[in-house]
Amino acid sequence: MKIAVLPGDGIGTEIVAEAVKVLQVLDLPLELEQAPVGGAAYEASGHPLPDSTLQLAKDADAILFGAVGDWKYDKLDRPLRPEQAILGLRKELGLFANFRPAICYPELTHASSLKPELVAGLDILIIRELTGDIYFGQPRGRRTAVDGHFPGSEEAFDTMRYSRPEIERIAHVAFQAARKRGGRVTSVDKANVLETFQFWKDVMIEVHAEYPDVELDHMYVDNAAMQLVKAPKRFDVMVTGNMFGDILSDAAAMLTGSIGMLPSASLDKHNKGLYEPSHGSAPDIAGKGIANPLATILSAAMMLKFSLNQPQAAARIESAVAAVLAQGLRTPDIWSEGTQKVGTREMGDAVVSVL
Amino acid sequence: MKIAVLPGDGIGTEIVAEAVKVLQVLDLPLELEQAPVGGAAYEASGHPLPDSTLQLAKDADAILFGAVGDWKYDKLDRPLRPEQAILGLRKELGLFANFRPAICYPELTHASSLKPELVAGLDILIIRELTGDIYFGQPRGRRTAVDGHFPGSEEAFDTMRYSRPEIERIAHVAFQAARKRGGRVTSVDKANVLETFQFWKDVMIEVHAEYPDVELDHMYVDNAAMQLVKAPKRFDVMVTGNMFGDILSDAAAMLTGSIGMLPSASLDKHNKGLYEPSHGSAPDIAGKGIANPLATILSAAMMLKFSLNQPQAAARIESAVAAVLAQGLRTPDIWSEGTQKVGTREMGDAVVSVL
Ligand SMILES: CC(C)[C@H](C(=O)O)[C@@H](O)C(=O)O
Ligand SMILES: CC(C)[C@H](C(=O)O)[C@@H](O)C(=O)O
Repeated sequence: MKIAVLPGDGIGTEIVAEAVKVLQVLDLPLELEQAPVGGAAYEASGHPLPDSTLQLAKDADAILFGAVGDWKYDKLDRPLRPEQAILGLRKELGLFANFRPAICYPELTHASSLKPELVAGLDILIIRELTGDIYFGQPRGRRTAVDGHFPGSEEAFDTMRYSRPEIERIAHVAFQAARKRGGRVTSVDKANVLETFQFWKDVMIEVHAEYPDVELDHMYVDNAAMQLVKAPKRFDVMVTGNMFGDILSDAAAMLTGSIGMLPSASLDKHNKGLYEPSHGSAPDIAGKGIANPLATILSAAMMLKFSLNQPQAAARIESAVAAVLAQGLRTPDIWSEGTQKVGTREMGDAVVSVL
Repeated sequence: MKIAVLPGDGIGTEIVAEAVKVLQVLDLPLELEQAPVGGAAYEASGHPLPDSTLQLAKDADAILFGAVGDWKYDKLDRPLRPEQAILGLRKELGLFANFRPAICYPELTHASSLKPELVAGLDILIIRELTGDIYFGQPRGRRTAVDGHFPGSEEAFDTMRYSRPEIERIAHVAFQAARKRGGRVTSVDKANVLETFQFWKDVMIEVHAEYPDVELDHMYVDNAAMQLVKAPKRFDVMVTGNMFGDILSDAAAMLTGSIGMLPSASLDKHNKGLYEPSHGSAPDIAGKGIANPLATILSAAMMLKFSLNQPQAAARIESAVAAVLAQGLRTPDIWSEGTQKVGTREMGDAVVSVL
């Protein structure tokens, strides 16, 4: 089983190193090959997603990804910026289904900015469509406005769009995921304003006919943002488009207080996937050895389960993570009075020694 | 001074009635004229924004608006649905600048879903552009896809767009508002993905050159959603586009715990405006006499200040609202142990009797 390892920028290198240590101790026939991505790749070769990195990712059975981005690249032309690497990988590999669990770890309930009773036991799965919507819609660019409020003036524009098969396939992913959980899907749209999301809603309803055992409800995106902060436990599976999913999944992850612990998976139609922590590259703490590697380690577990068909190995990692939390070990982001503060490497070592 | 009074649907009638009582007790030369809007107008005349209502709004110096919408209209064709009335008013009247304060009332700190220390004293002003973006961009509709992932399939699409003068005018509004407050503006964009919001960011930076006394920073919308739930007090003025503003302003309002108390204003370039509560039509509690009228009453105060040049009258209303809160009166949405539960009308009466 071949794994492409793409650490990227900021804390990416540090946290991926720990996940690699964990994978290596499992005694599985894993072939890990590393390549640069993001700002690191731009520095090395002038492009955030070099052909060789893309090829490695294509040839691999799964991709373990760290994080990309740093303020120092903000001035580059858009196609050269680190984020383009992740957008390019999603598009080139057809990774249309993004799984973003928002779980509140019992040990971290106090770390949430929400009142403990609102997040204790929280377990939502946000499924974000990842290769469509306004992220990739053409045409886009700058031009002279021919209509609107100020015809003749300079304007910039983008195209939001979803086709029927794109909505159908993410709908199936959501309904099937709900079957294995609480059996409820909330489809988030803005059907009251957008043609794209009226269509989204219509197709969700059609596909739902094949899943009579799953409950479906619809919520406008503004209301969904309100309900997430008011009563997040009301959700089971939330499915939405690329743009709304970007916003809502980050809000939900942050709400849990456990963002340093949350993995994510982005899958193609054959369950090949890219696995990365829900948090970003955190350039402010890069190189300090204090980043939390657990989201990346849990992403590696997700990879074993979803793409590499090794559910037992995945479960072993998950229990090892639970064990180190139970031992009271905490990186600074999740530290609280009475627990033991450790660095990135110590945390990784602790997981390895439990394994 | 002529005020168009548009109560709308759901709790709209009840809460607007209280605000009207408050306005009438002020002894100002106000001429109030009422007209149907939303579902109520559709029932009466077949259209959510009848010509006569639109004309009244155009002729008035300001508009006091309740709320529109009810699930029972969900099956209507989009142009006949209640929300079209509010979109139509914004567009026809050129109400491009939406002011959405997110304030946590000291008496209601406990009502927030966030921990009290994170919201105590919270006072953010979200300025949302309201007549541009993907809400109104053309073209939009359904068609057969000619490219993308599934050429030949049915797709729906919308156009996001902003022109330079649209961004410039909302930028001026934001910088000028910040001067009267904390002097800081956070512009929320998605410049890493969208052409429209790279342009937005560029123009914000240009306009900022005229306001050296105001601090400007930029934040991606996903990060802004995270920071709102993590540490909302870090913001002073937040300015963003129509779509992102829809989501973020609702999340922020709900976070405060005071959503039943939060007014909003939507202004044109001459400070003529439409004033409405931040909350919606709440069809589930309509007609029960339990809705909180204070957001609407405070919207009337905002109207006196922004559009009718009556800052003293506005201040009187605001103190009266503070007084009834201090008396311990609470509608059910903000009630807590030790305070006195009252209905919509009693709350309005209490404000009137303080005045
Ligand atoms: C880096 C950026 C392009 C990306 C996105 O917007 O999808 C990120 O926010 C994410 O959610 O993975
Ligand atoms: C009713 C709807 C069209 C509207 C919007 O999306 O702008 C509402 O959510 C709002 O924020 O005023």
